Amino acid sequence: MINVIGIGQKRENMTLGAIKAIEESDVIIGYKKYISQIEDLISDKEVIKKGMGDEIYRAEMAIQKSLDGQTVSLISSGDPGVFGMANVLYQIVSKYENVEINVYPGVSAVNYASDILGAPLNDFAAISLSNILTPLSEIEKKLRYALEANLIIAIYNPLSKTRREPFKRFKQCVIDVKGEDTLIGVVDSTYEPAKKTIVKVKDLTEDIVNMSCTLIVGNDLTYQQDNNLITPRGYVIRSDIHPLSQNHYEKFVNGEVAHGPNRDCEFYPCHWDGQYCDFCYCPFYPCGDSSTGGEWIKGKNVWNCKECNWLHEKNAVECLREPLENLITEVDDLKSKKKTLLKLRRACLLKNNPNDL
Amino acid sequence: MINVIGIGQKRENMTLGAIKAIEESDVIIGYKKYISQIEDLISDKEVIKKGMGDEIYRAEMAIQKSLDGQTVSLISSGDPGVFGMANVLYQIVSKYENVEINVYPGVSAVNYASDILGAPLNDFAAISLSNILTPLSEIEKKLRYALEANLIIAIYNPLSKTRREPFKRFKQCVIDVKGEDTLIGVVDSTYEPAKKTIVKVKDLTEDIVNMSCTLIVGNDLTYQQDNNLITPRGYVIRSDIHPLSQNHYEKFVNGEVAHGPNRDCEFYPCHWDGQYCDFCYCPFYPCGDSSTGGEWIKGKNVWNCKECNWLHEKNAVECLREPLENLITEVDDLKSKKKTLLKLRRACLLKNNPNDL
Repeated sequence: MINVIGIGQKRENMTLGAIKAIEESDVIIGYKKYISQIEDLISDKEVIKKGMGDEIYRAEMAIQKSLDGQTVSLISSGDPGVFGMANVLYQIVSKYENVEINVYPGVSAVNYASDILGAPLNDFAAISLSNILTPLSEIEKKLRYALEANLIIAIYNPLSKTRREPFKRFKQCVIDVKGEDTLIGVVDSTYEPAKKTIVKVKDLTEDIVNMSCTLIVGNDLTYQQDNNLITPRGYVIRSDIHPLSQNHYEKFVNGEVAHGPNRDCEFYPCHWDGQYCDFCYCPFYPCGDSSTGGEWIKGKNVWNCKECNWLHEKNAVECLREPLENLITEVDDLKSKKKTLLKLRRACLLKNNPNDL
Repeated sequence: MINVIGIGQKRENMTLGAIKAIEESDVIIGYKKYISQIEDLISDKEVIKKGMGDEIYRAEMAIQKSLDGQTVSLISSGDPGVFGMANVLYQIVSKYENVEINVYPGVSAVNYASDILGAPLNDFAAISLSNILTPLSEIEKKLRYALEANLIIAIYNPLSKTRREPFKRFKQCVIDVKGEDTLIGVVDSTYEPAKKTIVKVKDLTEDIVNMSCTLIVGNDLTYQQDNNLITPRGYVIRSDIHPLSQNHYEKFVNGEVAHGPNRDCEFYPCHWDGQYCDFCYCPFYPCGDSSTGGEWIKGKNVWNCKECNWLHEKNAVECLREPLENLITEVDDLKSKKKTLLKLRRACLLKNNPNDL
């Protein structure tokens, strides 16, 4: 029997199943660094430590010991299925008959790093920059598509002492597709507790990255707040409709709100000359999403949109106007259809189809 | 203090940190189903259970209890950063001052499901099919790009009783981009132990999928073996060079191997009429990668390529020939440069640039 075990990043991230399986094993096999993390749990066992790069040897050894009738634990950092030992074991185990494998999942680096950074994840990709087994062209293709798709990206194995080219390519991909202000969270687990840094990709230099780092690349909605990296999912925050907004949307549903700048308004231009005024009051208020510039006023239950100008931009209004006219047939729909409204907002923000929610 | 806690899928997947943080809490807040999973750990605590859809309420409640001086555990299934409670909490916490948040990572469904299925992961994407907060157009875009990028895809929230359209779109995307034979692993955690099914996408019907399932979509290299789903990473398996191969590559490095079909050979066509014979013996032997049809002969340390014809296809040979001529200057390079050779094989298999390894 071979237990393939993910031990996470540190003791408190180990699962009960992993600890029990290790306790019940006769032989422990793993990379030196990971073995040292569980030394106190395995003092009574046969321990085989090997260096990095000996993965096939470790897997063969586990199989041999298992065929000899012993219970073996094959140790991986994080989760054994994510760039860990499960893969290499399955590559060779079908040589043999009757080898039983149990994989014990663990906390993977993407989860460990994200939870330290705040809440940066939404739909995401996990991509390793190690080009030991994977061609650079393949890594670069995956990066570009994942960035184009607006996935959050977790980067494993970002930079080793001898392989710097993949990191350079990665930076360039992010800058090319997303721009140099893209936010990146770096979690460096050579420190305990792990060190957390949030930078723009243009400021992501090699001195803050090493093989023990996991990087989280933000998407078009990711923002930084109180030293946390956050990607909003857009939960509905209930709220009453302000009387002035009520008044505006009564006109709107009656077809009395003009399209474009409203130069007749005594306050025009309240933001900038050329602003569109179709949505004088925000139909999504309060969105609770700081990616467009709004924020909570601390200590008060008030959402402040002063820094959000998106709703008055020509492109935004042109995307939103018609679908909103179809959605809002009475002012109260601003409350009752808020979930759908927030999806419409999201579709226009991300330049997806506003009629396919 | 708010502990945002991932409790995994079942007790053995819970981390030591999660258990300790729950023990040290005064108040436990969570979705009913997840609370029932930890009932025995919280009998002495105030427990607030809410239904699905009350996420903002749960987060507000956690903040209020924390501001009252209590230690709160906000419970998520899996990992709280992956479509869990971390995100919604950060959406509203900046209303308040001095709320301390600690996120405890957990085993996410992608890891749980993959480790049950075998070793299907390599670079991957995790995408939720829930269109409650996310427009369909956005979900579909992410799916298409992730499939084009040849990422493995973990599908969260695949199918609910009321939302069937995202699942239909998903299936169609996979068929459009990858073809109807694409392998998909389904892990259904309504069973204990979880039920594992591996099907081709054309056979993925609604009756084997529900909200408690996680799906793993294979990529161009994923294969099924002994009821496991495996995506090879391509570790180097050392081996001696067979005398007949030695003989062939001596001619190859001397420029004596013709390009294309070798109709003068007494064995031609050993596979099919029109086959290319540049690589009469495989320069990657043994690749240990069943995605092209090879397999281990069980009980013997022998890799059998009988079902692998890829190396004799025109396209493959045209991709491989020139880079191989540059790489192999003496026969022994077949051993000493095997890592690079396997990357070249991978680049040509996946139709990436064979000169950018």
